[in-house]
Amino acid sequence: MLKEAVLHRNSYKYVYPSLRNCLNFKLRTGREDIKDCKLICFPRTDTDSPQILSMKCFARDHLFDYFETAAYFSKVARYQKYYFELVDAEDRSYYYSAYGITRERPEDGYFEFLYANRGDVISVPDWAKGIVYYQIFPERFKNGDTSNDPKECVPWGSIPDRECYMGGDLRGIIQKLDYLKSLSVDCLYLTPIFKADFNHKYATQDYYDVDPMFGSRQDLKDLIEGCHRRGMRIILDGVFNHTGIHFGPFEDLLEKQEKSAYKEWFYVTEYPVVVSHNAYECVGAYKWMPKLNTSNAEVKKFIINVMEYWIDEFGIDGWRLDVADEVDGGVWEEAHKRIKNKKQDVLLLGETWSLSDKMLEGNQLDSIMNYFFRDTVCDYFAKDKIDVDEFDHRLNQMYAVYHKEFQLALYNLLGSHDTARFLSESGGDKKKLKLAAAFQFIFPGSPAIYYGDEIGMEGDNDPDCRRGMIWEEEKQDKELFRWYCMLSRLRQEEKALKYGSFHTNICDAGQQLFGCIRKYENEVIYAVFSKNHSKTCVQAPLLSDSKAVDLIGNEEYAVEKEYTKDAYNGDILEYKGKVTVELLPYSMKVIKQIMEV
Amino acid sequence: MLKEAVLHRNSYKYVYPSLRNCLNFKLRTGREDIKDCKLICFPRTDTDSPQILSMKCFARDHLFDYFETAAYFSKVARYQKYYFELVDAEDRSYYYSAYGITRERPEDGYFEFLYANRGDVISVPDWAKGIVYYQIFPERFKNGDTSNDPKECVPWGSIPDRECYMGGDLRGIIQKLDYLKSLSVDCLYLTPIFKADFNHKYATQDYYDVDPMFGSRQDLKDLIEGCHRRGMRIILDGVFNHTGIHFGPFEDLLEKQEKSAYKEWFYVTEYPVVVSHNAYECVGAYKWMPKLNTSNAEVKKFIINVMEYWIDEFGIDGWRLDVADEVDGGVWEEAHKRIKNKKQDVLLLGETWSLSDKMLEGNQLDSIMNYFFRDTVCDYFAKDKIDVDEFDHRLNQMYAVYHKEFQLALYNLLGSHDTARFLSESGGDKKKLKLAAAFQFIFPGSPAIYYGDEIGMEGDNDPDCRRGMIWEEEKQDKELFRWYCMLSRLRQEEKALKYGSFHTNICDAGQQLFGCIRKYENEVIYAVFSKNHSKTCVQAPLLSDSKAVDLIGNEEYAVEKEYTKDAYNGDILEYKGKVTVELLPYSMKVIKQIMEV
Repeated sequence: MLKEAVLHRNSYKYVYPSLRNCLNFKLRTGREDIKDCKLICFPRTDTDSPQILSMKCFARDHLFDYFETAAYFSKVARYQKYYFELVDAEDRSYYYSAYGITRERPEDGYFEFLYANRGDVISVPDWAKGIVYYQIFPERFKNGDTSNDPKECVPWGSIPDRECYMGGDLRGIIQKLDYLKSLSVDCLYLTPIFKADFNHKYATQDYYDVDPMFGSRQDLKDLIEGCHRRGMRIILDGVFNHTGIHFGPFEDLLEKQEKSAYKEWFYVTEYPVVVSHNAYECVGAYKWMPKLNTSNAEVKKFIINVMEYWIDEFGIDGWRLDVADEVDGGVWEEAHKRIKNKKQDVLLLGETWSLSDKMLEGNQLDSIMNYFFRDTVCDYFAKDKIDVDEFDHRLNQMYAVYHKEFQLALYNLLGSHDTARFLSESGGDKKKLKLAAAFQFIFPGSPAIYYGDEIGMEGDNDPDCRRGMIWEEEKQDKELFRWYCMLSRLRQEEKALKYGSFHTNICDAGQQLFGCIRKYENEVIYAVFSKNHSKTCVQAPLLSDSKAVDLIGNEEYAVEKEYTKDAYNGDILEYKGKVTVELLPYSMKVIKQIMEV
Repeated sequence: MLKEAVLHRNSYKYVYPSLRNCLNFKLRTGREDIKDCKLICFPRTDTDSPQILSMKCFARDHLFDYFETAAYFSKVARYQKYYFELVDAEDRSYYYSAYGITRERPEDGYFEFLYANRGDVISVPDWAKGIVYYQIFPERFKNGDTSNDPKECVPWGSIPDRECYMGGDLRGIIQKLDYLKSLSVDCLYLTPIFKADFNHKYATQDYYDVDPMFGSRQDLKDLIEGCHRRGMRIILDGVFNHTGIHFGPFEDLLEKQEKSAYKEWFYVTEYPVVVSHNAYECVGAYKWMPKLNTSNAEVKKFIINVMEYWIDEFGIDGWRLDVADEVDGGVWEEAHKRIKNKKQDVLLLGETWSLSDKMLEGNQLDSIMNYFFRDTVCDYFAKDKIDVDEFDHRLNQMYAVYHKEFQLALYNLLGSHDTARFLSESGGDKKKLKLAAAFQFIFPGSPAIYYGDEIGMEGDNDPDCRRGMIWEEEKQDKELFRWYCMLSRLRQEEKALKYGSFHTNICDAGQQLFGCIRKYENEVIYAVFSKNHSKTCVQAPLLSDSKAVDLIGNEEYAVEKEYTKDAYNGDILEYKGKVTVELLPYSMKVIKQIMEV
């Protein structure tokens, strides 16, 4: 056994309560190194009747297998000592405790879980699992009210520069809610709408007011009400890492200098404070965006009050939190407790660009913008920069890092206002976007559509990715739109796609094929993605030998009961049959089985 | 290279700010697997002129080497992308980034550190580094005022049972401050003194009052003043995980049931609430100690108010926090910010029994009670349960887990009111205690003396370890006391012992020898510990060929300039000479060198 590969700690990353009486355990081993993995768990006052639980391999990357199991308790999970038994291919047992790995069953030095406090339990809102997001950059989605346009507006459809305005507003979004409903969108995410500088509104002036260019507070109320009436949710962008220079407290600092009551709200580096990146810490070198000292108690209180205000007074469903991983984590910890205590199902979704679970520690946020997913999908489907093995490695590595309670709520995007659009990353190759979008809707998590991607809009990185939405029907790619509508409906209809577990089951670099399984209760969905430039044929392994149906083509498959294991790597599951699937160049298939129970 | 052994994450465990402009990086590799390890670090906006820093192996256990380095920045540490270069024994370079390990230098997928907020920086009080603690169980230390004795007191010197009282109090401690000063104690830790049930006072009735059995608020003031006048600090025991049943809010709950304003302060499991472990969650099955719902905002506020009160009004130097790892971590995060904001050098020290760094994440606590150290030293020195290799493994494993800023402040104990005394664990064998105590004072951290250990008191686990302190001089082991005084003074005088780095340099299972190096600036101290029943002779490797002096025996050593590497394992350092050290059975030597700079 490869001892160096084995990893568990008695920390939240490896043992955590998903309910007050349910503990989830995770353990890492070397890839394909362990035949059997067991958790042995017992109360510290009673070593005689342990729970012995089999652990299941739920992910596999280049180097590692990842195991998990859940232990239930009659009362609250507390004072549990535990260790692991690992059996290698030669049937040798190893034991893993806090002291390390031994051949003898340990008699002390056990791992221990102490107490599942209420605040330790993961509380991702159910509504946020497996949903379809739609991201809107309000200045560029739809001009619904020309009376609030800035004077210097450029014509809708112009190629944007960093400064220009086009006149998009909240009324415009309201007018298009039925359009979004037709795309089966579950939740809107709007980039900032509060009174702020710049067309992107990330330099906030007043956190308690709607930007007049976007409309009134009543417009926002109408928008939220319009969403809710259609069964859609809406989350707003909370920019709490920094402000604009016209933010009241910052203006006070500029005016009163050392005497300002707000001088500790910012990181002043020299007096007198003038508008300059030398005088205070700011975002990058943007003097227009002074960084808030989020470690300051008053700032923390201010932020949480703002967050509560728009939930309490306007009924928004959650917050997308800008550069959340640059903010003192204590803010999110406190916000999580205060906000969820009042309204349990508010969603807290943080921006991060890396594979970083520090904000998903059960008491900070519920979800993150999964740019790691975006980069991986882009590198594989759009840029052909990595092969299918590396693609699979990254996906599984990511799937192993985030706890399964969070996985379903991850905001899985292909692009945003901060990246080039996926179609541009693909060099305008629509078949690549179609394949990637299909993958996005098949993979666990909540797929997010960046406005306009669904009708074939292109755009390089900011500012080009922020073009005005194309509403002239003749300029919209209707076939692509139908593809997105189909994917979105599939996602809503199929529980296995919304809530199911995930396993890679085909990873064929020669044929450029990737296949995976999603499973929820007795429903199983298989998806196969081909990047092959020729027609291919793949033997897809199935968990059951019952009927298999193509969910897109409606074709029924003949299931062959014989199955040869050797054909596939990443073989974590026990297969009982196979189907032969034909794939056109750059295409995918979605196959469903109902397993007998 | 053993890829599976390599570990780094962009989380606080592996990259953290020790100042706002200094980042510390940690990386794990396979044992003796890597010849050279470098950090390559650059601002995300400027990839052209990276900092390239050599990483140093600072710890080595059975399976792994642990590397670290610190990177300084002209301004605040932020937006730093980085990866690692690892060179194996065959001079092959490997690169480690967020995507994994490659043979090619990565072009994307770097690790990233985002922003060192003020609240992210470690802030362990300087005074708490490398100090000598003395733990007092107030009911059993000294009866200084018989007028406050409980009526049912048993005679001082009786063998204690769980319920008995002996009459110890604060006046008693005050009377013995000069005794403690003579032992060069830096800081007292008192188990609870607030009004509470039971002789141990862990079932609190009133967090704002001193228990009348222990004296008055004025007595406490006098005690604190007496400590401070002698240059000693004092910390109190904060029992915030649970209360006693006579705690006001719990009495209110018992009286008003569902209508009590405090019903959310506890975890009620059934109504009507009566004093029974079925009606509410409590500590273990002790119905006398209802668990507080520390995830509740009001409870959190109450706890922090209590903590602030005794700091502000009485000037205590810090808190030892009972079962800190059973409390919602949000309490410590908030307490840390609020308390340190007012008074920076307050110490927050949490109880934990495991190798657990979740509370030492920079924004919760400053130190922990290091029972992992106690168990390891006990298993090796007292019980002969593990050999020197396992001893070294556990020490280095622990040394690698806690960041170096915390290491020096760890409360390294040999025993407490919750364990058997070390002398009893050793079967009364004083030479084992002497050796273990010496090791405790040599190892990095803050050695803690449990009252009476220094004069040879014995006692099995609770209640036996809580006997009345022996004050009759003829019953005290004076030779042991002198040993402790010598160790304590050595610790105060030698900066290398107080602040130095640590390396194992002798680990000889055959001879039962363990040796280590502590180094601070140009001062180096070597210590060798022999558990051999015969006289032994060891060649101790030195970092320099300059003069070497025995700090206990005052003997001067002849330094041999030739040094053969093969003689020692764990060879992380470059040695330049050696001395031949003779050791009597079960003894130790402390040797000092001043290196030329």
